[in-house]
Amino acid sequence: MAQFQVTFLPDNIEITVEEGTNLLEAARTAGIELGSPCGGSGTCGKCAVRVASGAYEAGNDFHLAEEWKAQGYTLSCTASVKGDLTVEIPEKSRMKKHKVVLSERQIRENGFLQQNGKNPVGRKYHLVLTKPDLADNMNDLGRVRKALKKEYGVTEAMISLDCLRKLPEAIRLGDFEITVTVVMDQCRCEIIGVEPGKAEKPAFGAAVDMGTTTVVVVLVDLESGTIVDQEGTYNKQATYGSDVISRIIYADENRDGLNTLKEAAIDTVNELLAELLARNDLSAEDIISVVCGGNTVMTHLFLGVTPTYLRLEPYLPAAVTFPSVKAGTLGIGIHFHAPVLTLPSVASYVGGDISAGVFAILPKDSDELNLFIDIGTNGELVLGNSEWLVTCSCSAGPAFEGSGINCGMRAMDGAIDWIEIDPVNLEAGYRVINGGKPLGICGSGLIYSLSEMLEAGIIDRAGKIRTQPETGAGGSRIRIGWEGPEYLLVPASESGTGRDIVITEGDIKNLLRAKGAIFAGIRTMLQQVQLDMSVISNVFIAGGFGKYINITDAVRIGLLPDLPEEKYEYVGNSCIQGAILGLLSLEALVEMDEIASKMTYLELSIGNQFMDEFISAVFIPHTDLSLFPSLQ
Amino acid sequence: MAQFQVTFLPDNIEITVEEGTNLLEAARTAGIELGSPCGGSGTCGKCAVRVASGAYEAGNDFHLAEEWKAQGYTLSCTASVKGDLTVEIPEKSRMKKHKVVLSERQIRENGFLQQNGKNPVGRKYHLVLTKPDLADNMNDLGRVRKALKKEYGVTEAMISLDCLRKLPEAIRLGDFEITVTVVMDQCRCEIIGVEPGKAEKPAFGAAVDMGTTTVVVVLVDLESGTIVDQEGTYNKQATYGSDVISRIIYADENRDGLNTLKEAAIDTVNELLAELLARNDLSAEDIISVVCGGNTVMTHLFLGVTPTYLRLEPYLPAAVTFPSVKAGTLGIGIHFHAPVLTLPSVASYVGGDISAGVFAILPKDSDELNLFIDIGTNGELVLGNSEWLVTCSCSAGPAFEGSGINCGMRAMDGAIDWIEIDPVNLEAGYRVINGGKPLGICGSGLIYSLSEMLEAGIIDRAGKIRTQPETGAGGSRIRIGWEGPEYLLVPASESGTGRDIVITEGDIKNLLRAKGAIFAGIRTMLQQVQLDMSVISNVFIAGGFGKYINITDAVRIGLLPDLPEEKYEYVGNSCIQGAILGLLSLEALVEMDEIASKMTYLELSIGNQFMDEFISAVFIPHTDLSLFPSLQ
Repeated sequence: MAQFQVTFLPDNIEITVEEGTNLLEAARTAGIELGSPCGGSGTCGKCAVRVASGAYEAGNDFHLAEEWKAQGYTLSCTASVKGDLTVEIPEKSRMKKHKVVLSERQIRENGFLQQNGKNPVGRKYHLVLTKPDLADNMNDLGRVRKALKKEYGVTEAMISLDCLRKLPEAIRLGDFEITVTVVMDQCRCEIIGVEPGKAEKPAFGAAVDMGTTTVVVVLVDLESGTIVDQEGTYNKQATYGSDVISRIIYADENRDGLNTLKEAAIDTVNELLAELLARNDLSAEDIISVVCGGNTVMTHLFLGVTPTYLRLEPYLPAAVTFPSVKAGTLGIGIHFHAPVLTLPSVASYVGGDISAGVFAILPKDSDELNLFIDIGTNGELVLGNSEWLVTCSCSAGPAFEGSGINCGMRAMDGAIDWIEIDPVNLEAGYRVINGGKPLGICGSGLIYSLSEMLEAGIIDRAGKIRTQPETGAGGSRIRIGWEGPEYLLVPASESGTGRDIVITEGDIKNLLRAKGAIFAGIRTMLQQVQLDMSVISNVFIAGGFGKYINITDAVRIGLLPDLPEEKYEYVGNSCIQGAILGLLSLEALVEMDEIASKMTYLELSIGNQFMDEFISAVFIPHTDLSLFPSLQ
Repeated sequence: MAQFQVTFLPDNIEITVEEGTNLLEAARTAGIELGSPCGGSGTCGKCAVRVASGAYEAGNDFHLAEEWKAQGYTLSCTASVKGDLTVEIPEKSRMKKHKVVLSERQIRENGFLQQNGKNPVGRKYHLVLTKPDLADNMNDLGRVRKALKKEYGVTEAMISLDCLRKLPEAIRLGDFEITVTVVMDQCRCEIIGVEPGKAEKPAFGAAVDMGTTTVVVVLVDLESGTIVDQEGTYNKQATYGSDVISRIIYADENRDGLNTLKEAAIDTVNELLAELLARNDLSAEDIISVVCGGNTVMTHLFLGVTPTYLRLEPYLPAAVTFPSVKAGTLGIGIHFHAPVLTLPSVASYVGGDISAGVFAILPKDSDELNLFIDIGTNGELVLGNSEWLVTCSCSAGPAFEGSGINCGMRAMDGAIDWIEIDPVNLEAGYRVINGGKPLGICGSGLIYSLSEMLEAGIIDRAGKIRTQPETGAGGSRIRIGWEGPEYLLVPASESGTGRDIVITEGDIKNLLRAKGAIFAGIRTMLQQVQLDMSVISNVFIAGGFGKYINITDAVRIGLLPDLPEEKYEYVGNSCIQGAILGLLSLEALVEMDEIASKMTYLELSIGNQFMDEFISAVFIPHTDLSLFPSLQ
């Protein structure tokens, strides 16, 4: 088969590929990650590239505007190489690095650590051994174990074979002064590192939030308990599908699909680790433990365990508690023998991220009723107090993450996160994250848009666009687009993409479904425990999306319960907080296990209750207005 | 460099080697193991081969008789290839397979198993799982763990990642009927195998006696607790030196020497395992655990841990308890995740073989004073009762294994194991193991020879050959050989080697040293605990050598204490017995650990006591005849 050169600009990376190679694949081979939330099916239009020169065959690019096609743009996921090519990657098609916002204070002030003290999953111990003679010819390992017990109270330490092989030399190089790295792996206490003399560096751990969309790694000094650095990026799996269901399908339907996804997850983590190591002048061996939280599908994929049955009724995970795996075995680029601990799931759609979040966030000794909401691609809900916990997952869909929405995007630079619509001329004021021209609308922007469009009379409570607005004015903003009625939020002239930013009736339908699912989930859980919404004392909103949310507007559209605003608290990335606490405290890991096994999982697909609630909730704010007294 | 063909006969194996290749190495490359107890230094003369045709360069072959050289024989360890060669391997130079003698009865009747019951290191469990539905959507692993607990009382079972990856398919292939293989590894209970439905075969374990000279593997059915098969062979390490000290030196002084020795040990075990698997129609996966006993040096080498410091004062082992290692990691050809457990040592020269032997043999609840003697390359001694145990190791040297003795050989086909000398004509009657012409003298034959030569007046009590025998007759049997005075035991015309079988004064000196070391060790131990020899109730003789020993003669030469014969018992290969018990009982493993840590190790090189005893004991039977009342 013929081979062709493909040059990607502006990176100026040149690769050789076979004729017919998919352009999205080619970019990936060149190390360029393009957005591809639809999993390469040509329906999201987010992977557009411009072919500057050369022969290619465009595929289904139905979802690409004609004027863009005229400029040489094509959907990379459906286009194939037919000759030497020069391809420009527009900035908006490229996956971007995420900023991670996590405060040191959040960890330092965590009540659990304050109460229980630090007891990290691993640390280094400096030992001055007694020197042997014929009358004291205790073996090397025995000598180390004796000192560990005497100096630090560490008992029953075993040793990895690798380490035992290094021990005699290390002891003698240090003239019977040595530093050992000890990790606690399940019930085992194991020496996995030996250094002659006194080590210069402490031991580090990596907390990982393995999100469907974003992966975050936080580097923690296990000795001082401080956060040293953090880094986040898109999950490389995203190019195989934006949500967990499309990834399960990818794993099921592609040869070696599961392994591809596993490797993508591992690569993502390794890339972040490499960056953290380089920036902090550390070597791979310095990181001696990983605690990883993720939803159940992500956890399965991360460990290379088939997620097939998570998607098939009765939705069984392969496991909810996962074996500790040596980093080297899994391919994580840190100390070979570092244990990689994966936080426990509750069920197929309530994962270790939620166990971690509940542990990190919910008050431990309180009779108050708390509601924990993590809105991401799924909406996971936890309701309970220190005695009991009920949890469920509502397939909210990825609308609030910008997926399935024509001009939707994630909350990053260029995203509209706030909107105000003039009820007279229907023109919109908006705010763009970090300024500049807008590229699309993120979750919080979408919530504002619903609320504002209703307020301005653009839509009715059922989400239908009033093609003849009551005011009669602003007619130019409401029009019939290719998909039907739509509202023009930002004209092409103002946008950063050169295209109109619109909200279609289809988008609104998706948003109503997403918000309806979450609200219906909350209602169903409360009914299950026969409690009224008003009894809820605190609502904790977790996840990247929550940060930009405006409670008033979220209540106004019926996403969140109509409770006083002071009951709401945004808690940030609670998964990573739990993972960090796990690194710093074995007791925290035990407690997360207990929380996961204690939570009662409510399967919403049993019976009609959830569906009834859902149908009532796909309305702004709800068909039953008595649930929203403040709006009446 | 020029390449030449070397053909080995009668095997007819042809290999290509570079000019200058050592002939012993070439044979090894061709898969032919030659005896080489001196470690290839050209001093033992045991690796002679006959070059039928072709050019070679003989090295130092000082230790090869001239008439043999005339027939084309050369020492393979010092000869090098200079052209295409045809080489005959004489049967006597070839390493032979060992027969293993171990009775099923020994295991079945072991008091420990009878008292404590069977609790093997691993086994298979057949599980019929409840079928899931939406109301019972417990995860796969949880379902398995629940059934394991309910049906078999197995709690807290974790799972290997490999196995978790296979679990969902296996469960569904078996329609929720499954067989899991569970091993106990230290404190961890781990599922390492899953099979759909009900497994046809039980789980097996392999008990290994990793001897310096011989390696024995016993295949055990972990479910029924029966011995299925056994196989033994020479330790492939023997070609790098016959005793532990020469192996340590080999590891220290050769590039990659430690790894070479490790691989030789692993290869030996793998070869035996392959034979056992084939003969019993099993696959590698069917063996799910190994318990290995060996002396401390062997254990270090088996695990690839440097033995360097075992040889240097103050003689420190790297460890005396060893990490459990996955078979796959170590390269053992059984189930990848099978734990390989190595029995605990006491000190540098008292190893896991002794811990195993003491556990398997010594009465558990007895106030009687017992003496346990394992005479191999070293002599290990244990003295004590159910309350206390003292142990020491005497560097007896390999004389009783036939090494360091001109016509010495191991107790195998062709070895003289019994001798009677006519005091008149000094001609010897002798017995050859399994008949035929004699090839050499094994340990028990050497003991007889000492005793008989003394009786016949050939030697005096100091071991000097009386070149003018008192009787005056038989003069032709005593002569001055190349090394000095020697006794002609078998003339060349009667021998299977075509050479005289002689015992030289040097041989006698080595034998006296060997027996003196053991007797001195016994005496030193007794003095340490201030007990008299007569208090000993039972003497257990372990090891391959013990089987052929005649107590009367062993006492007569002063090797063993002068106690009534009924106090002596030959217990066979006690190491493998302990290892088998370890496979069948976790409690046995714990007890062996306790025995090892409880034994007080007596370092004989401290002070002059042992040396004084030794000097007195290098005499037949002893300088102090009052210690041998029955001989007075």
